[in-house]
Amino acid sequence: MQIAVLLYPGFTTLDAVGAYELLARLPGAETVFVAKEAGPVRNDQGSLALVADKTLAEVPRPDIVLVPGGPDARTAKDDPEIQNWLRTADATSTWTTSVCTGSLLLGAAGLLTGRRATTHWLAYEELSALGAEPTGERVVFDGKYVTAAGVSSGIDMALHLLGRIGGDATAQTIQLLTEYDPQPPYDAGSPEKAPAEIVAQWRGRSTDELG
Amino acid sequence: MQIAVLLYPGFTTLDAVGAYELLARLPGAETVFVAKEAGPVRNDQGSLALVADKTLAEVPRPDIVLVPGGPDARTAKDDPEIQNWLRTADATSTWTTSVCTGSLLLGAAGLLTGRRATTHWLAYEELSALGAEPTGERVVFDGKYVTAAGVSSGIDMALHLLGRIGGDATAQTIQLLTEYDPQPPYDAGSPEKAPAEIVAQWRGRSTDELG
Repeated sequence: MQIAVLLYPGFTTLDAVGAYELLARLPGAETVFVAKEAGPVRNDQGSLALVADKTLAEVPRPDIVLVPGGPDARTAKDDPEIQNWLRTADATSTWTTSVCTGSLLLGAAGLLTGRRATTHWLAYEELSALGAEPTGERVVFDGKYVTAAGVSSGIDMALHLLGRIGGDATAQTIQLLTEYDPQPPYDAGSPEKAPAEIVAQWRGRSTDELG
Repeated sequence: MQIAVLLYPGFTTLDAVGAYELLARLPGAETVFVAKEAGPVRNDQGSLALVADKTLAEVPRPDIVLVPGGPDARTAKDDPEIQNWLRTADATSTWTTSVCTGSLLLGAAGLLTGRRATTHWLAYEELSALGAEPTGERVVFDGKYVTAAGVSSGIDMALHLLGRIGGDATAQTIQLLTEYDPQPPYDAGSPEKAPAEIVAQWRGRSTDELG
């Protein structure tokens, strides 16, 4: 079971790492971070680089493809080399997944046409324009395509996937060992729950302002 | 406001990145990843390296110190160079914080003596042996010392800190933009909630088996 996590300049770190941290603990899984070139890839905030150990060409057939989002997903989605890799990897993958605006990359590669999918709540229209049918759910399964909402939702997506792949006990063990027992001091994690004046400040703005 | 995130070989990625992702969005914050030597630092799983942009010596007075845990926290905590940096940074910090077994590093540096603190649920005894008073809470404030439980709890810690530093609206805005609206499909994130047979398999084992 090989898991490939795609990196590109301007990705959002937790999109990639939230899902990675849990998925990589699947017994027998081999996880590899990939990018157009091997080496450090700088994130959206500019204050952190993650190292891609392999090039896209070196990892053509992962079992799981994981695509993070980020303010620069809009640029990355139009990169022919990334699009080609996504199509090639998807041709043999067991699961093709994304977090946040990572679904825009899947959509631009033509992989979500007519499929139910999700993304960051500020990017539903962009996702729709790429042929997908956005939903407001936090984690959306449509066949082997699994998309998660904004940033932190990759953790929930990973737990769903772990359950499907390894069974409930495997998922629960990994939840216990990562102590994923969320206790946020506020209940503002979605536009339905956050204070209306905060939602109003952001609604209509673009995800490229989020970094 | 300078936030320094400590890296050392064998750290757990989400410990560092969960809190980082939210804290770094604080308006006006400058975040920097530090290590004994600048450059890539490999994580506990071996499949990912994060880049430390600065050496410890280059960042002597951060406002916030953030220390992740990991299976190799036990080794890192006895490193004199790390201990010296933690004591120096703590002397002028506004907040000294840790996630998971990162509190063992704070404890070994002598910073938690007699203080209420927490860590991964498998490491309470080790934390106690370093002079702290472990509690079962997910996020523990004792003066300027803020410690969080295992791995994913750094996200909750960051929200608490954002509220204290920037106010409720700032914390809620960052929660909304990172869509931290947890919906885990299982309720197994603590030893009190996970299936008893899974907890029994792990209780008494060491956190250095977690990587």
